[in-house]
Amino acid sequence: MTQNNELVDARNVVFERFTDMLLECNVISKRHTDMYPITDIGTKLFSGEEEKGDGEKETILATVNRMAAPFLGITSVGVHLLCYVRGNGDDDSSDDGDKTNIGLFQNVIKEAGEEAGIDPEVVTKNALSTGCLSQMTCKPNDGTCMKQSLYYIWDMEVDRKTFIPHPADGEVVQFELCTAKQLEYEVRYGNRLRPAMILVITDFLIRHGIITPDNESDYSKIIAAIHRERLVLEYVPP
Amino acid sequence: MTQNNELVDARNVVFERFTDMLLECNVISKRHTDMYPITDIGTKLFSGEEEKGDGEKETILATVNRMAAPFLGITSVGVHLLCYVRGNGDDDSSDDGDKTNIGLFQNVIKEAGEEAGIDPEVVTKNALSTGCLSQMTCKPNDGTCMKQSLYYIWDMEVDRKTFIPHPADGEVVQFELCTAKQLEYEVRYGNRLRPAMILVITDFLIRHGIITPDNESDYSKIIAAIHRERLVLEYVPP
Repeated sequence: MTQNNELVDARNVVFERFTDMLLECNVISKRHTDMYPITDIGTKLFSGEEEKGDGEKETILATVNRMAAPFLGITSVGVHLLCYVRGNGDDDSSDDGDKTNIGLFQNVIKEAGEEAGIDPEVVTKNALSTGCLSQMTCKPNDGTCMKQSLYYIWDMEVDRKTFIPHPADGEVVQFELCTAKQLEYEVRYGNRLRPAMILVITDFLIRHGIITPDNESDYSKIIAAIHRERLVLEYVPP
Repeated sequence: MTQNNELVDARNVVFERFTDMLLECNVISKRHTDMYPITDIGTKLFSGEEEKGDGEKETILATVNRMAAPFLGITSVGVHLLCYVRGNGDDDSSDDGDKTNIGLFQNVIKEAGEEAGIDPEVVTKNALSTGCLSQMTCKPNDGTCMKQSLYYIWDMEVDRKTFIPHPADGEVVQFELCTAKQLEYEVRYGNRLRPAMILVITDFLIRHGIITPDNESDYSKIIAAIHRERLVLEYVPP
């Protein structure tokens, strides 16, 4: 156990040096405030290998600064909670990386409280997990820094009169109720959504019957693309 | 136009001979009552080629007996309507191949009426398209006859008291209300569902928060698999 901790510490030192290098070479402009835990998610998700039992925690192999992680081919895992009122499609009210080693839904509950001031009991009772999406992004100017992301999605139907999310920890500036048509316009032609949100909202519009096979000729192509396995670098234990 | 019809007729003759051959060699045991239209769905769905405008109908290149189609590598397209009451997950009340060249949702409405006696107005008003799934199956005994299928899915929430589907055209024997737990048991351990229904019900249970990333360790692997592009043989126009 001590030996293992020493190994993790040694790896962390290397990753810190790597982050310094990226900064010195102006590949990244700053350190992120979060550190990202590297686990063996690659083998867990897409290989044919046996999984650990549900009770067993994932082993953290090392931690790396979040800004440096994509340059190492590390899959970023995030959770999104999409809140909507019937007849409307709301932008998601909270999202965040899977920072800690708690269950994914526990992470949703925690972040919904921190970022949007939503009562944990409300989320526990009403949020429904609906799937997961994958995306690979890169810097638009030169195609570098390909980043592989996996987003786990929850929907929560809310009452327009009583549900009032508010920026709690300052990470979100404001919340806005959008119609499904506004969201469809944004994913098709707009520039207000970042890539992860285009992905998540497109999936929402597909799952809720706004984008359909009869009004979108690329329907099945889009659905295949947002669920596609990507390159995942496997960790081979020594 | 006449020349094109002659070409289609000539192809149909060849496919009829091919079906005869499969019968003579005992590869298939009988002719299906349906003929399957071959369109250029392959290039439409998964290649980078330009699509036709929404108004333009797909060209039928030939028709082939439904039993013989998978042996030609032809993608089978079907639609499924899943009816459920809140708090329960119902097996789907109607499903059928995309036989004719009408819109997919029109096909759902038509089949829901024919197979389950559901009022077209009810389906038009309440059914929501939720996505599409892909599956490749083969004969379990020898692995032959790999069949590629694409299923377009609609959900319809119904009122348990007033919604009474009934076998209308005799294709369905009976309808049964199942709990989500029963359905989960069936897809995990049961033998009552055919492969297409295991696919469709698994997706339903994922989309409705019954199977979640925290209770199923293969969660993201399953989601990637049921949406994966498969081999599609492209038709290259002469």
